[in-house]
Amino acid sequence: MNISKNQLKLITSLSQKKYRQKHNLFIVEGVKVVNEFLNSNFQLHTLFHTNKFVNEDIDKDKLVCISDTDLKKVSNLKNPNTVLGLFKIPEQNKINDKGFVLVLDAINDPGNLGTIIRLCDWFGIKELICSKDTVDCYNAKVVQASMGSLTRISIHYVDIIEYLAATNLPKFIADMNGENIYKTLLPRDGVLVMGNEANGVSDEVKELVNNSISIPRFGDTQETESLNVATATAILLSEFRRGLD
Amino acid sequence: MNISKNQLKLITSLSQKKYRQKHNLFIVEGVKVVNEFLNSNFQLHTLFHTNKFVNEDIDKDKLVCISDTDLKKVSNLKNPNTVLGLFKIPEQNKINDKGFVLVLDAINDPGNLGTIIRLCDWFGIKELICSKDTVDCYNAKVVQASMGSLTRISIHYVDIIEYLAATNLPKFIADMNGENIYKTLLPRDGVLVMGNEANGVSDEVKELVNNSISIPRFGDTQETESLNVATATAILLSEFRRGLD
Repeated sequence: MNISKNQLKLITSLSQKKYRQKHNLFIVEGVKVVNEFLNSNFQLHTLFHTNKFVNEDIDKDKLVCISDTDLKKVSNLKNPNTVLGLFKIPEQNKINDKGFVLVLDAINDPGNLGTIIRLCDWFGIKELICSKDTVDCYNAKVVQASMGSLTRISIHYVDIIEYLAATNLPKFIADMNGENIYKTLLPRDGVLVMGNEANGVSDEVKELVNNSISIPRFGDTQETESLNVATATAILLSEFRRGLD
Repeated sequence: MNISKNQLKLITSLSQKKYRQKHNLFIVEGVKVVNEFLNSNFQLHTLFHTNKFVNEDIDKDKLVCISDTDLKKVSNLKNPNTVLGLFKIPEQNKINDKGFVLVLDAINDPGNLGTIIRLCDWFGIKELICSKDTVDCYNAKVVQASMGSLTRISIHYVDIIEYLAATNLPKFIADMNGENIYKTLLPRDGVLVMGNEANGVSDEVKELVNNSISIPRFGDTQETESLNVATATAILLSEFRRGLD
């Protein structure tokens, strides 16, 4: 079975959030990441492949052969791989409000969100709560940057003000003027809020959170403005987890 | 003075390392980062601007007015700013082999190198030693990702095998099978080697270094392959520095 014009059109449309939501589908590319999604709870819709992808477990109705040229047309990768899968966007689970929860307040950059999802996976954090204006986790760049970690993390897009007002977990925000993280006694369970790349955590969130933490700067100039939000998240999560090991 | 065809050709050629080396020049874009370079020891060669950039301290001979259209042609940014500067590549300093030294073994991705340069700046690390096959730090993407931190770090491209064989500092490599970083007694001064994105630290380097450290994985699956090299560097540098604060 070869690819149809409508299928090509469908794939292209999924680069936009509104069409991902309309069709309830998103794109996964590359043999390695596609295999991680096939082996997860995500449901396959259609798998487009250039006849080099072999997986006997896949229902033949869902397999569509595609030419290298067509794959290049629809791929988001610089060097398109041999396979592109459309998977169904799962229904949002209920938040499991215990253990350690990471909250993102308006993260814009897909690469940053992908890196943060991968960090959650590394540090065993199952619940990631995103403000509604955080970049969509089914954005193709996020999916590729998270390298399959998306299949292991429970991601929720909610009103984070409501969530933060309701949770009983101890709450922390990352803020340039916060307490030195290395000198703060950190609990095993808690909520950490990371803010927007340019503006940090919003004032509304700040009003709801008592504890503010920061990573001290060791350089002698004051010119290094701030760490990138993904690297700051890496350091803070490591600090919360290091005592547990 | 308006831009000439030869100047346009020169700027375009600087996207390639061989022409940067031939002309001994590299590109810096954007008002903020250009100003950081102007206020540093780097020497300006020519400053192209769209007539919106005001800096009275600059020698008029070095200022060239450029149209928005021409700037768009030569810019590496999605949304070109109002200014593009050509700066001279400085001569390589001698390595100051004391304190804390970061060594990169074949880092390929410009974004990763830029993030790592910014991390060095944050953590007060002055010496960054790169293997000769590490991506060029005067690559436009590295310059933009490092956000002016490049002006504060001393970067050396050398034979890292020779350097590691000669240094008297205690040496560490980041390796998946290394000792748990959280349980390792870390010295104040030392050398940390971070390896290539796909292959890690090379075998030749491993033979020269006794101490191997890793960041423990907290997730219960073994599927998260590894952390991105820039986030791993963030966590490891934080661990080396945290005791000093």
